[in-house]
Amino acid sequence: MKQVVLRAYAKGEPRAEDFAVETVSVPTPGPGEVLLKTQWLSLDPLIRFAIDEKLITGRAKVEIGDVLYGGAVSRVEASNAEGYAPGDWVEGRTGWREYAAIDPARVPIRKVDPAAAPASAYLGLLGMPGQTAHACMIEVGRVRAGETVVISAAAGAVGSMAGQVGKILGARVVGIAGGPDKCRAVEALGFDACVDYKAPGYRAQLAAACPDGINVYIDNVGGDVTQAVLPLFKYGARMIVCGFIAYYGIGLEGPGPDRLPGFMRTIMSKGLEVRGFGGILAAGKDALDDMARWLGEGRLQLNQAVVEGIDAAPAAFAGIFRGNANVGKLLVRIAHD
Amino acid sequence: MKQVVLRAYAKGEPRAEDFAVETVSVPTPGPGEVLLKTQWLSLDPLIRFAIDEKLITGRAKVEIGDVLYGGAVSRVEASNAEGYAPGDWVEGRTGWREYAAIDPARVPIRKVDPAAAPASAYLGLLGMPGQTAHACMIEVGRVRAGETVVISAAAGAVGSMAGQVGKILGARVVGIAGGPDKCRAVEALGFDACVDYKAPGYRAQLAAACPDGINVYIDNVGGDVTQAVLPLFKYGARMIVCGFIAYYGIGLEGPGPDRLPGFMRTIMSKGLEVRGFGGILAAGKDALDDMARWLGEGRLQLNQAVVEGIDAAPAAFAGIFRGNANVGKLLVRIAHD
Repeated sequence: MKQVVLRAYAKGEPRAEDFAVETVSVPTPGPGEVLLKTQWLSLDPLIRFAIDEKLITGRAKVEIGDVLYGGAVSRVEASNAEGYAPGDWVEGRTGWREYAAIDPARVPIRKVDPAAAPASAYLGLLGMPGQTAHACMIEVGRVRAGETVVISAAAGAVGSMAGQVGKILGARVVGIAGGPDKCRAVEALGFDACVDYKAPGYRAQLAAACPDGINVYIDNVGGDVTQAVLPLFKYGARMIVCGFIAYYGIGLEGPGPDRLPGFMRTIMSKGLEVRGFGGILAAGKDALDDMARWLGEGRLQLNQAVVEGIDAAPAAFAGIFRGNANVGKLLVRIAHD
Repeated sequence: MKQVVLRAYAKGEPRAEDFAVETVSVPTPGPGEVLLKTQWLSLDPLIRFAIDEKLITGRAKVEIGDVLYGGAVSRVEASNAEGYAPGDWVEGRTGWREYAAIDPARVPIRKVDPAAAPASAYLGLLGMPGQTAHACMIEVGRVRAGETVVISAAAGAVGSMAGQVGKILGARVVGIAGGPDKCRAVEALGFDACVDYKAPGYRAQLAAACPDGINVYIDNVGGDVTQAVLPLFKYGARMIVCGFIAYYGIGLEGPGPDRLPGFMRTIMSKGLEVRGFGGILAAGKDALDDMARWLGEGRLQLNQAVVEGIDAAPAAFAGIFRGNANVGKLLVRIAHD
């Protein structure tokens, strides 16, 4: 079997060469363990916080030579754990590898049903990104019908799902993405408009797409993309910070000018509410029930980008940070059971 | 009678010379108007947004030669308005003048009772600063017993009241103020500790005063004072932005480095909730009932700084921005009825 390990800590944007694909024996499950055959692997941008020298925090660090962690959907091949039988399907952070032997008491996994929804959906709409999108729009963003919601990185996993939830809620949904192709793909998901932040008229186009101002902003980017949003906030607007890819290469301080005074002025003059949101949820189960129902009703599109085989994982992961052309949740198909 | 008018827009920190004291005739109240004799005048730092060239927004601008606006407690001398009689006491934004003739249908005023509380309290604990302090701690900050609350500009009107409310709620309350004298005055109000941001060991002392981290931060300052707070936030902390005196002389962008990346990182990694708060209230009346009850029970101190006579108003106002030695709500006593 193959697995992907960390070869070197990234210096800024991760490169494929920071990873190594190893061939090792398929593990034998010990007492209490299950043997999993990985089917789908999720490539999560947040892993960067565990492998980028500038961003590493003690808790999440990956050691050199360790298998990368990451969510996966797998089929149980053998089981020494109560409650799991061969043929069951499960989802959990079981790592970038073709087989894994894990103890469910130590590595949390949940059973999933590949008959109820495509197995890959449990890493997207019916997994953490879907929970995050749901919470950003409903629990934290409190989006109401008729409001205007703007979403940066709208072509990304969370952004593309959040926008679809916004349309179900009856909001006007405006995406921000890089390049005309991504913008068209975002509009095809049902967004009312998508503005290209790489285009020269970005600021004016964003303002034109939000004639009534902005009530809710789901930010995954920061930097210049977000600077254009600030003047458009209505009084009492909400800004949910889900990421800041523009600052991933920067520590606590970037090159001047200092834009914090303008942000504080916006917060105060607009009575703005800003919330950091990293996927810790009060209502995770209810969120997944909503997403599953809407998916079943055809009101949500899966919106996945799939690469084939574990060998492709390092380059696909590195591509996230170079604004690759993928739209939606980025997945690696490991097996075809 | 005397009144204070704007002579010139401030360039940065307001100076006493930006104002002029004029002598004019006492006005005669027209139909529907009341004639008010000003007793107490409030000097509100927010007026700066109406007179500082760099900060002026269209809505709040004061024209050259206009009387400065500002809250005042007055006695009714004559009345052509239904519901008001000579001898009534009222509070409202009736301006920096010894007498005012106003139409209550156009300039909102409320009746106050100088027998129930000192008349000056209606500009402080029982007025907008008291409502703001109450809302920051209860409605917006949701402070709970046992939590740690940090308050910058703790010697100021809102800060000194908010800290007292925090002690009533059972929180640990830590103030930040400039200089040992102000810090001692803050501690005399019942704060558990007050840290001097001008002292060399400011950051270490703040950390030592908050051994369990910070749950709620009431910010009136911004800048370096606030930078020291950010690393101490607990997960799920709340930051209420009531002002940013450090940025008053700065537009949207200050000199580098750019501290916005670090702020966004804190927001996300701590799940921080940041709220701008400028005194627009859902529960204003209930707040004032609470404050009046606590004042009556001796659980709140008035904490006022008083200057005498309208001639002293310009210099006292300018002093706010130079970190004058005043502690508490800054008032001008205009008359002694």
